[in-house]
Amino acid sequence: MQRWAARIEYQGAAYAGWQRLAHIRSVQGELEQALGQIAAHPVQVFAAGRTDAGVHGLGQVVHFDSPSTRTPLAWLLGSNVHLPDDIALRWVQPVAAHFHARYLALARRYRYVFLNSRARSALLAGRVTFWPRALDEQRMHAAAQALLGERDFSAFRDSECQSPTPFRNVSAIRVWRSGEFVVMDIRANAFLHHMVRNIAGTLAEVGQGKQPPEWVAEVLSSRQRRLAGMTAPADGLYFVGPEYPAEFGLPAPPEPWFPATMAS
Amino acid sequence: MQRWAARIEYQGAAYAGWQRLAHIRSVQGELEQALGQIAAHPVQVFAAGRTDAGVHGLGQVVHFDSPSTRTPLAWLLGSNVHLPDDIALRWVQPVAAHFHARYLALARRYRYVFLNSRARSALLAGRVTFWPRALDEQRMHAAAQALLGERDFSAFRDSECQSPTPFRNVSAIRVWRSGEFVVMDIRANAFLHHMVRNIAGTLAEVGQGKQPPEWVAEVLSSRQRRLAGMTAPADGLYFVGPEYPAEFGLPAPPEPWFPATMAS
Repeated sequence: MQRWAARIEYQGAAYAGWQRLAHIRSVQGELEQALGQIAAHPVQVFAAGRTDAGVHGLGQVVHFDSPSTRTPLAWLLGSNVHLPDDIALRWVQPVAAHFHARYLALARRYRYVFLNSRARSALLAGRVTFWPRALDEQRMHAAAQALLGERDFSAFRDSECQSPTPFRNVSAIRVWRSGEFVVMDIRANAFLHHMVRNIAGTLAEVGQGKQPPEWVAEVLSSRQRRLAGMTAPADGLYFVGPEYPAEFGLPAPPEPWFPATMAS
Repeated sequence: MQRWAARIEYQGAAYAGWQRLAHIRSVQGELEQALGQIAAHPVQVFAAGRTDAGVHGLGQVVHFDSPSTRTPLAWLLGSNVHLPDDIALRWVQPVAAHFHARYLALARRYRYVFLNSRARSALLAGRVTFWPRALDEQRMHAAAQALLGERDFSAFRDSECQSPTPFRNVSAIRVWRSGEFVVMDIRANAFLHHMVRNIAGTLAEVGQGKQPPEWVAEVLSSRQRRLAGMTAPADGLYFVGPEYPAEFGLPAPPEPWFPATMAS
């Protein structure tokens, strides 16, 4: 029996989310079906993060076990033939038997992209959150720093969240602009259900001047979901990927390919 | 009667190309239908470049005339409601009556994007040309410089090209890498039918070592289409946009939003 790790990229639009469900298309379901055809036995995958419906995966990582003798390239190329166009394996590597994609992730990174423009984008339809009102990204960045550290994120947690604890440790949060795009990059040990989208929606209220920057700290300490901003749409959300201890020898999360950083 | 200029962004996949044709979906046809609803009369548009089936528009520019009194914002927001998700107006501006989107363009810019990786991309399906064999972008860049200047591009011209002359003036061509992406940026006064895709396919042969860099100059001077490389797929091709004399006060072509330039 060999344990394998793999990176998966996907468009969220066509799927009910990551997690396998009966009678509904899920990314996990499609992936297990494709890997199973290469393995010639049923395969179960375990993912670093279970993304919601519509959320995109840039560098999702999974692990799975198989007694079948296959090269990394055979898993990679074979599975990509059996996967739909909107899901792709990007690499496959053998990994130590005690590796676990979910439990051993040290940190997870997400990117949220607003298109801050009067006009929507055709090439990025469904890939960004169209936000026509002006956003002040420096104000959003300043406000976001209140979220750093080990905190009780009850105010940014969906009512359906099943985590036993509302505490998460945010190690970096940065809001920046590249032309018409306002981007929020966030890194934490893990995230609560809808946490990134609730933070994005809250920072957008600060960015368009409806709330002062100090409001974010107040919302956080209130622990009241109803005080925070809206859940921002899934369209602009990318799971960039997890980070693991160096001993496993896995590639770092991918560098997001958009938006381009404009020369200043 | 007022003349208007507008920038259009579109995904090429669903259309038979830019040009309006009976009974087939075209970008021009969709745009004229949407503008016509705002104008309340039939509208005919003239474009800077007539892109082929599948080619993407990042900064296509058109002009049209209307006696109807509308603000730029009314044209923009109104038309975007009537356009499908994969076509969008990005700006609309009043322009002098002697402006012509096609005949007054001083230069046109295209970007061609190869994904040079063993594994295809799910998020960029149909938006890049997947090229699994290794490409040497420096070799491609060096070879490409032979195409600069006013030249007879018969070797890179489709047999169906209707231009009265095979001469075009290439003012810049650059091939560069950003992570897994190999990008060709090219600027010329105008382009022949399939010229960018034929150049991309020819440079790819140099990039993967099938031909020496000097071969590109030989192909050019041969004026024989059969000596050049394949016509590279439309998926990776973006019409970045045209440039006009400053007197018309139009925005420069947009900065492409991908791929991100990696920090070195």
